[in-house]
Amino acid sequence: MSRVWNFSAGPAALPQAVLERAQREMLDWNGSGASVMEQSHRGKRFIEMAARTEEDLRSLLGIPADYAVLFLQGGATQQFAQIPMNLAGEGDSADYLVSGHWSAKAVGEASTYVRVNVAASSAADDYLKLPERSSWQLDPHAAYVHYTPNETIHGVEFHDIPDVGAVPLVADMSSNILSEPLDVSRFGLIYAGAQKNIGPSGLVVMIIRRDLLQRPGRPMARIFRYAEHAANDSMLNTPNTWGWYVAGLTFQWLHEQGGLAAMAERNRAKAALLYQAIDGSGGYYSNPIELGSRSRMNVRFSLYDGALDAAFVAESEAAGLIALKGHKALGGMRASLYNAVPLEAVQALTAFMQDFAQRHG
Amino acid sequence: MSRVWNFSAGPAALPQAVLERAQREMLDWNGSGASVMEQSHRGKRFIEMAARTEEDLRSLLGIPADYAVLFLQGGATQQFAQIPMNLAGEGDSADYLVSGHWSAKAVGEASTYVRVNVAASSAADDYLKLPERSSWQLDPHAAYVHYTPNETIHGVEFHDIPDVGAVPLVADMSSNILSEPLDVSRFGLIYAGAQKNIGPSGLVVMIIRRDLLQRPGRPMARIFRYAEHAANDSMLNTPNTWGWYVAGLTFQWLHEQGGLAAMAERNRAKAALLYQAIDGSGGYYSNPIELGSRSRMNVRFSLYDGALDAAFVAESEAAGLIALKGHKALGGMRASLYNAVPLEAVQALTAFMQDFAQRHG
Repeated sequence: MSRVWNFSAGPAALPQAVLERAQREMLDWNGSGASVMEQSHRGKRFIEMAARTEEDLRSLLGIPADYAVLFLQGGATQQFAQIPMNLAGEGDSADYLVSGHWSAKAVGEASTYVRVNVAASSAADDYLKLPERSSWQLDPHAAYVHYTPNETIHGVEFHDIPDVGAVPLVADMSSNILSEPLDVSRFGLIYAGAQKNIGPSGLVVMIIRRDLLQRPGRPMARIFRYAEHAANDSMLNTPNTWGWYVAGLTFQWLHEQGGLAAMAERNRAKAALLYQAIDGSGGYYSNPIELGSRSRMNVRFSLYDGALDAAFVAESEAAGLIALKGHKALGGMRASLYNAVPLEAVQALTAFMQDFAQRHG
Repeated sequence: MSRVWNFSAGPAALPQAVLERAQREMLDWNGSGASVMEQSHRGKRFIEMAARTEEDLRSLLGIPADYAVLFLQGGATQQFAQIPMNLAGEGDSADYLVSGHWSAKAVGEASTYVRVNVAASSAADDYLKLPERSSWQLDPHAAYVHYTPNETIHGVEFHDIPDVGAVPLVADMSSNILSEPLDVSRFGLIYAGAQKNIGPSGLVVMIIRRDLLQRPGRPMARIFRYAEHAANDSMLNTPNTWGWYVAGLTFQWLHEQGGLAAMAERNRAKAALLYQAIDGSGGYYSNPIELGSRSRMNVRFSLYDGALDAAFVAESEAAGLIALKGHKALGGMRASLYNAVPLEAVQALTAFMQDFAQRHG
């Protein structure tokens, strides 16, 4: 069939231009007579591409020189464990802000390696809003503060960067990295699974302040140590070469689109259009999130009558609007509006929603 | 340029038919209107493909039902650490057979998590032959015995499966899996980085006897626990979906080629042809490995005069024969002859070698 509008929460839509280029280059990449998948990661061609990809990310985000960029594996979930292994010493504690499914999961994976202090949580509010700032119990001696700026499942997002003083701020940006300009210098460590705003799954991009690489951390094999990955340009072992390549194509595409300021403008417009369609539906559709906590990336909505959910999913798919079914833990619908989802897709979705409401009114 | 003959040790050549199919399906996979990279791993299409891929691997290798198959990340190197985390308890020891670079590296990464007993080593022989069986000091109480059936860098290979009694045998088959039929029931755990005989890098395929999933192992986050991955069909977190897909295409290709008996025949013929060219060159080329320990997959050879190495590499590349330069630790040349390298490529290589010897005699 022809290409659909894909609202998947992840692995998510990729820019069509990126896919077309990967398709063209599949059998003969960069004049090598072989696929990029068939290149040694120690070869000149691959190393040049890898370095250019890092440079393109650095220029997109304005990453300062005292930060290392790593291309890792294992998904963000593995980093939930590896971060305390690397940043916490014996007996240390770390502060966690819990604002949804993923930040809660980060606590679970970390607790083998560090004493976790849940400094704030909105679990009692069903994660329908961010934890109130006045409630945060930050420890100035914490090894770090971990938070999740955007919660993919619950659809809540921090719209500014928390001030946590001198303690390094660690952010799981899997679902909002590269969606707008960012002041990287406010963070100690930023990490993101690639499969939402960067590229295919199986790749994690990390931005880490170099002084944090000096922390001894917990006893661990060399393969888990960020300092070793940094010292080896993320080629301590064979990296996910295909993921690195597609990430590079995406970064080039972002530059061609005008960079992150342009993406921020588009992303604001897309989210505004969809929230307007929901809020203006006279209650036919609704979003449960507190206004100031709404995510630009993952927009939840429910139909006034849950009995219509199956029809909504089936008819939207038939109309070429896919992956709108909400996460099984929450039900309802969810539209993910990452960089590769154009405004045109959201226009098609809101038109469909209006039509659906009229037909099933 | 046109496609070359690729002798890379890994990431290595893929079957051209696999690349062509991945190319065709790039923008519209399986009638979905989206790339396989853009599919949710929780979606029906992806889950069906993933299950079929596992079934194709099971039928290729005749994997018994009491073994789980896992699709993991982090490369074989991460498994060097994760295996003792999962299979060894507090205070346990494990036996390691050291026959080259990779088995030595496995010892290094394991030693944080288990007391390592190097039960045998051929380091004193510069890894030019396998450790003598009479020298092995196996411990019947070991948590497991680890070995590397084929050493990619040193070019030595075990041509039978060691008898280690009741202790589970653990094998890093990264560079020889699927190269011939295998009696999986002789093993406790088999693992392989995909980037040689399976697919792109960033994927690890593991075959583990289910009783070993019950071992408590060392304290670790859930993401590192094989039992959790098995219980969640390798979707405990987002897997490397592209790698899984390409692996599936390769498994289908192997079935189309006649399965592993046919591949074994081809691989024997390819290695025999190249070793004959080396041994029959009157000393112009030489392979240093003891005859009974020679690898079918990774064939090392030196020119009688190392001053000709640079010319050999440059002229072979110009002739469309790439990645023949040996590992930097050993120098000389190396040709990797994995499944996707056809006999025609080895014929082209041996013809080139003969021609080169005549011109630079």
